[in-house]
Order: sequence, then C-alpha cells, then structure tokens
Amino acid sequence: MTLFKPDVVAQRYRDRIRETVKQIDQPVKLVGFLANSASAPSRKYAKYTQRGCEDVGILYEQRECPRLKLESELARANADPSVHGIMIYYPIFGTQQDTTLKNLIAPEKDVEGLSERWLRNLYANIRRVGPEQCKAVLPCTPLAVLKILKYLDCFDAQSQIKKTVTIFNRSEVVGRPLAALLAQDGATVYSFDVDGPILYHGDSIEESSISRQEALQASDIVVSGVPGRDFQLIDETEVGPETICINVASIKNFEPSLRDYVSHFVAKVGQVTVAMCLRNTLRLYQNYHR
Amino acid sequence: MTLFKPDVVAQRYRDRIRETVKQIDQPVKLVGFLANSASAPSRKYAKYTQRGCEDVGILYEQRECPRLKLESELARANADPSVHGIMIYYPIFGTQQDTTLKNLIAPEKDVEGLSERWLRNLYANIRRVGPEQCKAVLPCTPLAVLKILKYLDCFDAQSQIKKTVTIFNRSEVVGRPLAALLAQDGATVYSFDVDGPILYHGDSIEESSISRQEALQASDIVVSGVPGRDFQLIDETEVGPETICINVASIKNFEPSLRDYVSHFVAKVGQVTVAMCLRNTLRLYQNYHR
Repeated sequence: MTLFKPDVVAQRYRDRIRETVKQIDQPVKLVGFLANSASAPSRKYAKYTQRGCEDVGILYEQRECPRLKLESELARANADPSVHGIMIYYPIFGTQQDTTLKNLIAPEKDVEGLSERWLRNLYANIRRVGPEQCKAVLPCTPLAVLKILKYLDCFDAQSQIKKTVTIFNRSEVVGRPLAALLAQDGATVYSFDVDGPILYHGDSIEESSISRQEALQASDIVVSGVPGRDFQLIDETEVGPETICINVASIKNFEPSLRDYVSHFVAKVGQVTVAMCLRNTLRLYQNYHR
Repeated sequence: MTLFKPDVVAQRYRDRIRETVKQIDQPVKLVGFLANSASAPSRKYAKYTQRGCEDVGILYEQRECPRLKLESELARANADPSVHGIMIYYPIFGTQQDTTLKNLIAPEKDVEGLSERWLRNLYANIRRVGPEQCKAVLPCTPLAVLKILKYLDCFDAQSQIKKTVTIFNRSEVVGRPLAALLAQDGATVYSFDVDGPILYHGDSIEESSISRQEALQASDIVVSGVPGRDFQLIDETEVGPETICINVASIKNFEPSLRDYVSHFVAKVGQVTVAMCLRNTLRLYQNYHR
C-alpha cells in the first residue's frame, strides 16, 4: 500500500501559519463568496476553507449573494480595508463571465492567485513583485502539488526538481501554471490536454509529438486532473514502479489497482490546496495590508 | 424584401476614418496575429481587416507565428512604438488560455476592446478614461450593432434607445457587452443564453423568468449570435412586423422566411465590425500614440 495522504503536508503549513497569525495584533480576514447556492462542491470547499481558517486563527467570513450582485459585492470587499483576502467559489455563471469575475478581485486580495496579474507573473517566472519585492502569490492547487513533491523529496538542495513529469490538464487553474512552475524549477514536463502534448522545460515551451505511452513511461511523476468521464484511467502497466502519481481531479483519473504498484499514490490534494489558500491569505496580509 | 445590407454603415465610418488618417503625418499601424494557421474563418477575417485598412489608409501588418510563440510576439509588439493597434485572430488554443492571451495585449493597443480593462470600463458605464478623459474603446461587434441601430433611427435625439431588445448570446465578446451598452443607453434588454434570461435595464441587472416567446413578442429589436446548430431558428410567427432582426452569428439564427415579414433583417454585420476595428485603431492612436 503506497497511498500517501497529504494531510501531514497540510498540517505542517497550517502549523506555521498559526504561529505567524498569533503574532499579528489584528484579525486577518478572508472573505469567501458563495453566489451559486445550488453547487454542492462549492459548499463543501467553502466548509473546508472555513475549518482551515478556524484552525489557524484566520477570520473567515462567508458572504452569500445572488450571482448578479457578486460584482458589486466584490467592489465593496475590495474597498474594505478590514478584508485581506477574497475568494469566489466557482462556477458562478460557468462561462467566460467567471474569468471576468476572477479579474474583478483586487490582486492584493486575490488569495487564489488566479487573476491575470498573478498568472502573468507566474508564466514570466517573476516570483517577487513591486518596489518592495514582495513574494508573488501562486495558485493554490499547483502550489499544493509542489509542496507535496517537496515533502516527498523530489527537490534537490538547490530547490531544483530534476525530474520528468507528465500532467494531464492544461487549464489556467491547475495544469498550465503547474507545468510552468515545475519547468521553471528544472523539470521536463509533458503537458497533455485534448489538443495533444506540449513540452515545458525551463523557459522553453514547444509543441511535442510524444505519445501518452511514451510520456508516462519516461515520467518520474504523473499528475492528472481531467474532469471528464471519458478519460482513459491511467493504470499500472503504463508507469514505472518508482513513479509518484497525484490525482488532482474531483473524479478518479487512475485505476485503483495502480496504487499498490507505484512509489507513492496521492488520491486527493484538497487539504493542501486549502492550506495554500490560508498561506496566500497570510502572504497578502504581510505584503499589502500590515 | 426587407434585407438591410449594412455596407452603407461600414462605408460611412470608413469614409470618416480615411479623412482623419489622411491628416496624420506618420503611418498608423495595425498588427494582426495569425497563430492558428489551420483556421479558415481566421484567415477570412484577417483578409477583410487587411482590405479595410487598405481602404482607409491604415498600415496593416500580418504576423504569423506558432501559437507557442504568440506571447513573446505580443510582448514585442506591445513594446514597439511604431505599432498602434494589435489584434489576434481567435481561436488560438480554444481554451481559457485564449483569454490570457487577450489580456496580454496592452490596453493602449487593444483594438478589439476585449481585454479586462476595457470590458470593466464598459460594464461600469465608464465611457471616458484617464486624466485626459480619452474616449474608451468598445468591442467591435457590439459597437457594430449599435451603429447599425443608430443608422436605422433607433436612437432618439438624446442618444437614447427607448426600445425593448432580445439578445441570444451572452458571451463576453458579443452578447454581454451589447446588452450592457444598450441598457446603459436606455433600452430594456432580455439577454438569453443556455442558462436562461437576464434582464438589463439602465444599470440594473436582474434574473428574469420571461419566456423566449414573451421576450420576442415584446421586442422591437432581436439580435442573435448563437453558434450552435441546435438553436431553434427564430421565425416570423415569433416576432412582430415592426421588428428589426440582426444576425451576428456565423451561421443562420433566423428562418429565411422571416426576412420578408419584419421591418429590417440584417444577415451579417462583419463589414461594420471591421470598420469599428479600424475606428478603434484610430482612436487608440489618437488617445495614446500621437
């Protein structure tokens, strides 16, 4: 059994955050917007965020509003100096309008790091920003994967990850930022989506003609975040026994039989994602609000 | 036969632009990026843009590059003071990554007005920007529809449009900006997408429970831009005889038999869209580059 539960990683970060928050003499406040009350996954994620906040001493305030009021509610939260972090539980409209909403959060309060400003810095490998050279905010799920890989000793003493990685998913929320971050840190990354593979290495990004089979065979690490049921589950015949496999989708992307065969199997990263969201809240507080 | 060909509207704007461009003593340059060579509609749109530029005296430069080089090419064009306008022929990746590309165009060169900065101004009804109160850039297709409606005398002497409008399509490129613009100018707008209707009126935006039939019956103007083949074509039994119907989709959204029944039927707006793109190029030149 090689199932690795990343709770220990989440715990480690929550402990550090709690220590720092303790020393701050005002409430650090995160506001989470629920504007699509029908969505059960959103409520669940909101609950985890709330629990995480309670655990580390960040004040969590949930605000519920009709979706058509969300823009004005965001403007109000952006302008409110007592709010240090803002997040939205997606989907709201489920269309490109959600991207517009994402960019309405002030970057100085964007704990998910998904607004254009943060993504642009990430893709340009700019890890410190502004005149004070504040640490940039990185999106929570890609960051969670990085932290798990760090815990599993994939990074060397120079913080480089000299590994080959295959990632299924190239969304702007998970797969593409993760591919960019890993490549910037030294990895060779095959990024797959329905459109085929792209090779990330250092700052270079190239079209690739590698097959799924070849990429998986060559990989030390496989991360998969495909939401669709028609994805062919990755099984033990496709990967080597030393592989680390991480499932970041809300559904199974790996055959259950694979987990006993590989070096480490991570079934879900949600706990670490939430911890990174808390970490970003604290970072934004330290960067812009103290 | 009530088919209205909006070439006359396009012509009117091109004539005005040509006059102004003549008086500028340096080349006004628009760069169009083709980074998805496989797309026939993109090539066609590029050709129309090129022809439009030639007609009004704007220097058009087409740049072709692999999709993975587009980001660095955009950075180069943003930094080049001889380039006054930039546009991308979409789709490139066909995913949210295209939105990221959209926002990599400097707003001061974004002739399509589709980057977050311009859209945000539009939705907030901010029509003049910056310390010099420059006129804002509006996206080309919604603006084209506005200009056609203006030509057809839908606006009153106070530039208000006291009409009821139904729009099928609520994308960030066409339907949503158009609904917002028309509502800001006085119209009552029923905006439909797969998700159902939303009512825009002035600065107010509300959920609506109106049916397609009721909305169409009540409308003076119907604009439709649905790309999917499963959309039920709008026919003459659904609208009144005084209605203006405008098709902004690349496929038919109206039954051919409707056109003899309504007041005016506009089958396509592409020519005016291109003219608005030229107008935006000139506006950006005047605002930021002279």
